[in-house]
Amino acid sequence: MEILQHHSTLATTLRERRQRLAKMIDFPAILWSGQRSSRNFPANVYPFRASSHFLYFAGIPLENVAIFLHGGKLELFMDEAPSSHALWHGEMPKREEIAQAIGADGAFPLSELPSRSTGAATIAVQDVTTYQQQTQILNRSVAPADGAEEIDGELVRAIASLRLCHDPGALSELRQAAAVTVEAHQAGMRATPTAKLEAEVRGAMEHVIMAHNMTDAYAGIVTVYGEVLHNEQYHHPLQPGDLLLADVGAETPMGWASDVTRTWPVTGTFSSTQRDLYEIVLAAHDACIDKIRPGIEYLDIHLLAASVISQGLVDLGILRGQVSDLVEMDAHALFFPHGVGHLLGLDVHDMEDLGDLAGYEEGRKRSSRFGLCYLRLNRPLKAGMLVTIEPGFYQVPAILHDQQLRSKYQEVVNWERLAQFSDVRGIRIEDDVLVTEEGSEVITAALPTHADAIEQLVQ
Amino acid sequence: MEILQHHSTLATTLRERRQRLAKMIDFPAILWSGQRSSRNFPANVYPFRASSHFLYFAGIPLENVAIFLHGGKLELFMDEAPSSHALWHGEMPKREEIAQAIGADGAFPLSELPSRSTGAATIAVQDVTTYQQQTQILNRSVAPADGAEEIDGELVRAIASLRLCHDPGALSELRQAAAVTVEAHQAGMRATPTAKLEAEVRGAMEHVIMAHNMTDAYAGIVTVYGEVLHNEQYHHPLQPGDLLLADVGAETPMGWASDVTRTWPVTGTFSSTQRDLYEIVLAAHDACIDKIRPGIEYLDIHLLAASVISQGLVDLGILRGQVSDLVEMDAHALFFPHGVGHLLGLDVHDMEDLGDLAGYEEGRKRSSRFGLCYLRLNRPLKAGMLVTIEPGFYQVPAILHDQQLRSKYQEVVNWERLAQFSDVRGIRIEDDVLVTEEGSEVITAALPTHADAIEQLVQ
Repeated sequence: MEILQHHSTLATTLRERRQRLAKMIDFPAILWSGQRSSRNFPANVYPFRASSHFLYFAGIPLENVAIFLHGGKLELFMDEAPSSHALWHGEMPKREEIAQAIGADGAFPLSELPSRSTGAATIAVQDVTTYQQQTQILNRSVAPADGAEEIDGELVRAIASLRLCHDPGALSELRQAAAVTVEAHQAGMRATPTAKLEAEVRGAMEHVIMAHNMTDAYAGIVTVYGEVLHNEQYHHPLQPGDLLLADVGAETPMGWASDVTRTWPVTGTFSSTQRDLYEIVLAAHDACIDKIRPGIEYLDIHLLAASVISQGLVDLGILRGQVSDLVEMDAHALFFPHGVGHLLGLDVHDMEDLGDLAGYEEGRKRSSRFGLCYLRLNRPLKAGMLVTIEPGFYQVPAILHDQQLRSKYQEVVNWERLAQFSDVRGIRIEDDVLVTEEGSEVITAALPTHADAIEQLVQ
Repeated sequence: MEILQHHSTLATTLRERRQRLAKMIDFPAILWSGQRSSRNFPANVYPFRASSHFLYFAGIPLENVAIFLHGGKLELFMDEAPSSHALWHGEMPKREEIAQAIGADGAFPLSELPSRSTGAATIAVQDVTTYQQQTQILNRSVAPADGAEEIDGELVRAIASLRLCHDPGALSELRQAAAVTVEAHQAGMRATPTAKLEAEVRGAMEHVIMAHNMTDAYAGIVTVYGEVLHNEQYHHPLQPGDLLLADVGAETPMGWASDVTRTWPVTGTFSSTQRDLYEIVLAAHDACIDKIRPGIEYLDIHLLAASVISQGLVDLGILRGQVSDLVEMDAHALFFPHGVGHLLGLDVHDMEDLGDLAGYEEGRKRSSRFGLCYLRLNRPLKAGMLVTIEPGFYQVPAILHDQQLRSKYQEVVNWERLAQFSDVRGIRIEDDVLVTEEGSEVITAALPTHADAIEQLVQ
């Protein structure tokens, strides 16, 4: 297993993580890695992804394994592969080898796990088969992760507070994912002038990710229909005048994610209207990153993006009125309907399996406001947090043709002026930003954002 | 949805399939498409793959949809996407548009499905959530697909007999998958001389598949450890003298698979020992394909491969004895431990969710013999069947170092001679072969198999 070869510091990193956990809870926890899900028949499975909470403490994407954490110690529960397994899957590391690699304090077959289950907390995994095992072995109900209760709720809060700020082991992985993601976007830009379909650009980007033996952290978006926020179709032709929006991020073999978006002109040259709107999104992106430092509220970063975008649209004559009034009435959300970003770590929306528990400071709830309801992060920032900054401008028919919204914002939008920007469906610029003691560091900064530099990369 | 645009003959194909089904069963059937499985958090899902039985009759990979088949008619049960869906996923085709595209005789919301459930048969899907819905809506237990009973068992046998022989609509898709797979292998060979890792070759191959907006039909194998039959690791370096074994196949957006293996020298030149063994595997491959025609037993094709390989190994001095005796005692299986191939269609091991029901003629059971137990297909061939032919030669430590096997075959193996071939870990040559009225057609024949031609492609 690749991972056993390379990470001599892994055991130390993992020991420090569980020792920090031990200071926060005084009861044991069992975390399951999960199992593969079948695709079209039982043996044809999706690529395995271990539970992120498991990975945080066990480091290695082991299948069908559990770890018992208590008092800063880790015990590994796994079964050895049967001997028939070697013909099909090769020799697997033995339990003891894995235990050594991750610095476990003990290693046992899975059959001994029930003897450790009394009073243990857990977090529900995603795959249903393992989830059912969790309730069986703990001999009690286990709520889904976003509704964890009692000791499970305490465990979830403790792990969320640990995972919010990244340690050096995590940052090393996150930087590797970021570097490969940057390279993938460069390859996508270079492939564009000769590509006829979105899928061809996507292929060039995934080529880079796979060549580094990484995977997608999420279903990539590579589309000329950038106004569809989670577009997963790649069959559209590229036509002169189109903008291509690519939101693609790599994930390291140990599960750490990157998340980057760039938007570029298919021909290599922005039209003047495209460039006008691109510059607005970029101004918001830059202003937000400038503002990031420990202590600042992420909500204020989001509202700053809303203000910069609103100001830009007023300057272009698309919106009318005072910027503060426009943001107050959510007029920016007509064109920027999502949040300015989210936490990033082992999950691309880090810890979203816990609902808003990680993203929202205790006691805060999602707003129902049109301009705030999709904000995934609402906390004061702390050094060690990694967040995305991803403002955008979109012309979404489902929003702009909505009669209720159209009448509400009738007066503040110059619809005729807007019609002149019909060659912009969607623009988003997204980077991964580490909060540091001094302020911030854009770990994806090697990928240009300026319109001129983007044009040069596409040529 | 791409598929609504291109397939004007789809409705006709689907109507013919369900009319054929209606001649075989006189009770209704409900087939579910299934739902996405979550990866590390609920919204981060694996790429959706609809159930193959559903796809066979519904054509389009629709999520969370059911079809009701009875008397040659099809009714579609699906819910329209909620309006909030458009912001994130774009406008989806309406129920009526999809119903028209697939030639449905009626279209209803899912809430009306229970009213059709009385006396309906079904086949269990792979995802647990939908499987639980199947038992709820039918209000009875539903066995897994490989253990279907009563009317479910009758339905499974009827569908298996239909899916065994491909109609023109299926063959059109299978040929597209084959063509892209051929191109992917060519790209992999071209990428090899400059690649440092297996992963780089894999990236070049997947690039082609993705650029055609296709997906992997299965987890690709791209490895210098070709003796690991289902190797899914890609991190090993390529070193002079290594053979690279690539078993990679594309799947069309409508779900039809290809499955091709080639083995090539990393440097572009086979060593003499590699070439000797390559020629033996190729001779088996060619002999099997020559033999394919309607009426022949696939078991005999497998035994032919075993004979040709045994003869070749005798000629090289690796095995000793009469070929017929060697095959009878499974000596070939020391080096060729798997079956010579399998059915291919909507699944790469077509209908393997049904256990051996599709692969094995009624009344036949898997042999427990070392040389036959992994054979996935044991039927007389019929025109319209698509099968793989994939003989191989491997040096699997788990077999060759097994004390029991070693003593059983002590006399028939010249272990010293074998040691001279230590630069061959695994060789497999696999093509997709259509049984025709006249004999056979290799639908992946555009990809060379001869050693000289392979060497030229790698240069």
